[in-house]
Amino acid sequence: MSKLKLLPLGGMSSVTQNMYLYQYEKEILLVDCGIGFPDMYMPGVDTLIPDISYLQEQVQNGAKIVAMLLSHGHDDHIGALPYLLPDLPNFPIYASPLTAGFAQDRLSDKKIDREIQVVPDKKMIKLSQFFSFELIAMTHSVPDTKHIVINTPVGKIYHGSDFKLDKAPIDGILSDMAEVKRMADQGILLALVDSLRVDRNVWTKSESSVGPALEKEMANVKGKILVTLMSSHIHRIQQVVNACAKLGRKVAFVGRSVEQNVASASLLNKLHFPDGIQADKNHLAEIADNKLCIIVAGSQGQEGSSLVRAVYGEHPIIQITPQDKVIFSANIIPGNEINYYAAIDELSANNVEVVYPEINRDIHSSGHASSVEQRELVDTLSAKYLMPIGGADRHRAIFRKIVANAAGYDNQHVLLPKSGEVLGIDNNGIKVIDKVLLNAKAVDGLGIGDVGPIVLSDRLSLSKAGIIVLVIPKIAGTFDLAKMKVVSRGFVFMKEADEVIAFIKEKTAEIIEVEAQTITDDDLKKKIERKLAKKLYKVIKREPMIVPVIVEL
Amino acid sequence: MSKLKLLPLGGMSSVTQNMYLYQYEKEILLVDCGIGFPDMYMPGVDTLIPDISYLQEQVQNGAKIVAMLLSHGHDDHIGALPYLLPDLPNFPIYASPLTAGFAQDRLSDKKIDREIQVVPDKKMIKLSQFFSFELIAMTHSVPDTKHIVINTPVGKIYHGSDFKLDKAPIDGILSDMAEVKRMADQGILLALVDSLRVDRNVWTKSESSVGPALEKEMANVKGKILVTLMSSHIHRIQQVVNACAKLGRKVAFVGRSVEQNVASASLLNKLHFPDGIQADKNHLAEIADNKLCIIVAGSQGQEGSSLVRAVYGEHPIIQITPQDKVIFSANIIPGNEINYYAAIDELSANNVEVVYPEINRDIHSSGHASSVEQRELVDTLSAKYLMPIGGADRHRAIFRKIVANAAGYDNQHVLLPKSGEVLGIDNNGIKVIDKVLLNAKAVDGLGIGDVGPIVLSDRLSLSKAGIIVLVIPKIAGTFDLAKMKVVSRGFVFMKEADEVIAFIKEKTAEIIEVEAQTITDDDLKKKIERKLAKKLYKVIKREPMIVPVIVEL
Repeated sequence: MSKLKLLPLGGMSSVTQNMYLYQYEKEILLVDCGIGFPDMYMPGVDTLIPDISYLQEQVQNGAKIVAMLLSHGHDDHIGALPYLLPDLPNFPIYASPLTAGFAQDRLSDKKIDREIQVVPDKKMIKLSQFFSFELIAMTHSVPDTKHIVINTPVGKIYHGSDFKLDKAPIDGILSDMAEVKRMADQGILLALVDSLRVDRNVWTKSESSVGPALEKEMANVKGKILVTLMSSHIHRIQQVVNACAKLGRKVAFVGRSVEQNVASASLLNKLHFPDGIQADKNHLAEIADNKLCIIVAGSQGQEGSSLVRAVYGEHPIIQITPQDKVIFSANIIPGNEINYYAAIDELSANNVEVVYPEINRDIHSSGHASSVEQRELVDTLSAKYLMPIGGADRHRAIFRKIVANAAGYDNQHVLLPKSGEVLGIDNNGIKVIDKVLLNAKAVDGLGIGDVGPIVLSDRLSLSKAGIIVLVIPKIAGTFDLAKMKVVSRGFVFMKEADEVIAFIKEKTAEIIEVEAQTITDDDLKKKIERKLAKKLYKVIKREPMIVPVIVEL
Repeated sequence: MSKLKLLPLGGMSSVTQNMYLYQYEKEILLVDCGIGFPDMYMPGVDTLIPDISYLQEQVQNGAKIVAMLLSHGHDDHIGALPYLLPDLPNFPIYASPLTAGFAQDRLSDKKIDREIQVVPDKKMIKLSQFFSFELIAMTHSVPDTKHIVINTPVGKIYHGSDFKLDKAPIDGILSDMAEVKRMADQGILLALVDSLRVDRNVWTKSESSVGPALEKEMANVKGKILVTLMSSHIHRIQQVVNACAKLGRKVAFVGRSVEQNVASASLLNKLHFPDGIQADKNHLAEIADNKLCIIVAGSQGQEGSSLVRAVYGEHPIIQITPQDKVIFSANIIPGNEINYYAAIDELSANNVEVVYPEINRDIHSSGHASSVEQRELVDTLSAKYLMPIGGADRHRAIFRKIVANAAGYDNQHVLLPKSGEVLGIDNNGIKVIDKVLLNAKAVDGLGIGDVGPIVLSDRLSLSKAGIIVLVIPKIAGTFDLAKMKVVSRGFVFMKEADEVIAFIKEKTAEIIEVEAQTITDDDLKKKIERKLAKKLYKVIKREPMIVPVIVEL
């Protein structure tokens, strides 16, 4: 019997960039297609997308993609669609209504025409000879989130990406544990389980607990209220709208992502507005400040977001005054601390009241299961094997210990593959059968993949000590050292650096005089680079990038 | 009657870079002399130091620095000494024993010979005609921390920098609230109070609660134990040493900052070792892993620190195995998240057990007072005016609301000066009487202050999209466009960028052909920069720095 192959294309150690490949013989099933977020070590990079070269190789060798399934509408699960679909053959894509709506938005943004098929829950859908699947309702920080049961020739796989077990969800749609149980009763070979929030051991607060806390913060505000939140968090938005209705405020939406998501969710009846509550963002001046609430994008303090422009007085529509109150109804995503706190500090310095979860924990609730809920799901599933996903390495390691081991799984039955490891699954067990090199591609401006490791490491070097360009004329085979030019950026303030420039010119001239006779120009350039770097470091303890350019005339 | 002037030289909005100037007529008293920590928007910068130009101006105009007082031994209070003392006239410096010891270490590091005078607590010391001071014992995350009462002609100032009210400190030296009360009974005009941890409303855990939790984590470990912590946290180190004694482990210290601080603290009898417990770091191989604990620098996951080198298998002395356990007994300082978690993830991926405060809150306790303790101090002081310090703008704003207002102070009696505002203080009140421009100086390699705003903004631009240098030869007044050279770094991978280079050359040639006749070379360079940037952005949505260099022959 053949093995089922499983490879996370986004790598195993990253929380984002979710994309999973399941393969049985010549059939491939994909789950999710998400982007990753570059950190400070990837300056200038907008987005990371999973490496699909292994997938493309399989396709070239005759494999067929039978379908792609989308678990929910967050960008780290659907955002890579417009970048990757153009490089792949056609195949059907399935999702729940809101997930399909959000995915369709991502595609239209990049003018890609592709239909996503909406499928109901609890209905086993046959895809091909080997694969069928069904969706199971789960609660999370975006409505219409699903777990996926995949029937394969080797057994049932439970693909349990992002979830929580909210006991009082805003739309009343509970995580369908009865259906999980029904599937479990049929026997599950392997369960993939969201491990992100395994470091918390208390049942995650219900989303419905956040509404009353927000309403309390929104009461008795003299001026406008600004609420910033994750723009896909439709249930959070619904609760702010409901609070506005009670408090007699109109609500406006500002910021591309918020506006787009609100429009799509409304269209699909996932967001409900009392009559007349919506304000046109282009006519805010007509509404008294104490009758207005603005839901605004930028909850991470992102540069250029609507919130941040408003905070620094640069927004064409929103002017914040000391009468106003700003509510951050979102936690920091690690890496955004500097910008997030800078926005809060700027507001504080201008005497604007700001509330954020560190001040009032009740105004935010996570969308992820704590270890207690993870354990509940694991117990219900009774899968033979477990594989924590959706977390960093530290979360997967803790999951193994405090969820899996505690539930009776020994380490052999908990899979922690490293990035690029292909698991081979059959009734005899699961083991690593192949190793693939995964290099996430960087999207930078309009370029995809042309900013690689060398360019990024150059950018980091440039940022640390700048660049010195030495333009050295060579006329009829002889270097004209008197005409040498030194240009620098990001090194030292050049107007005050005559001494350093003189030093650089002198040392370069010395090197050329000693070496030029005996070596090629290319070797000479390398020699200048190396020697000058050493000499500069000695006198100034910095390592600017040194680029000699020989102009031959 | 003259006013007492007060100016925080490190700026009011930064948590670090603490340095305060008090001036009465021609006498100046300084408190603390700390460095600041650059964030990701200051790439390449090692350290920030306060701007003392106002101070130097006063000195030039005849003012005399009567003394500098140091509150405690953290680098954001003493680390700028070696950078600033050489630029100032001589004056006495006073501190408690350990603070003096640590300060002396900073000075010897940079080979600066200057004595620091050790003074006892609760003794009013006359400095000059107008100023006298006394130290009051306080608990914090470094021993020998003091608050300072400054007697001035306008009244008593209570300089209450970093503190907590630990009810069971490791060295038994409680915050001396009786002395605070005695001073308060004499009447305090203005109290400066540490506001950093105002967002917590529960009394900060005693440091002594951390020891048992650490001991529990250290029990039953099969291999070595590595503990990483703030290297100045002598009481934390003492507790790890004590736990080692109980568990029969030897303890070694690795990492320059840890080793230096341990040596100084031992010398001053602030750290006590049971006989024979210390291991020589150069003979670790002689000790069985299960009998060894290493206290290692690098608790923020800093690049190049001993811990991080060990984590990535690059340390000459420490090899970490899956039998070992690593304990992070420190919280993240905002901005270090990426490196901190990367170290933890790398250990987890290698099956090494890691514990950090998010997993076990009991293994760390803050050194700062919560709002409850701040309130306790404020109530005891009964000062006429309050001024929150040591926090960001958000903390100062919250302090005003939940500590000061709650204690009965109206906003007129709570001072929140902006950075550079000089307060004028007398019995009639306190108001802003001058405004100074403060520009923290960057220390970069061996340079102090030569990396200014322009260089930093260039570095940021370079990091985002790299640089394109256009070398354009001009021979006898005519541009030789065929010989033009394009060199780039950090832009795109040039081997795959023939098209882009051709585009750049073509567009540059076009601009030169149209413009060169009518404008100067300098204007031409500017035009090329601007026009080419625009054209490039259109086709590739990136903004590399463009540097045209005209080589005239």
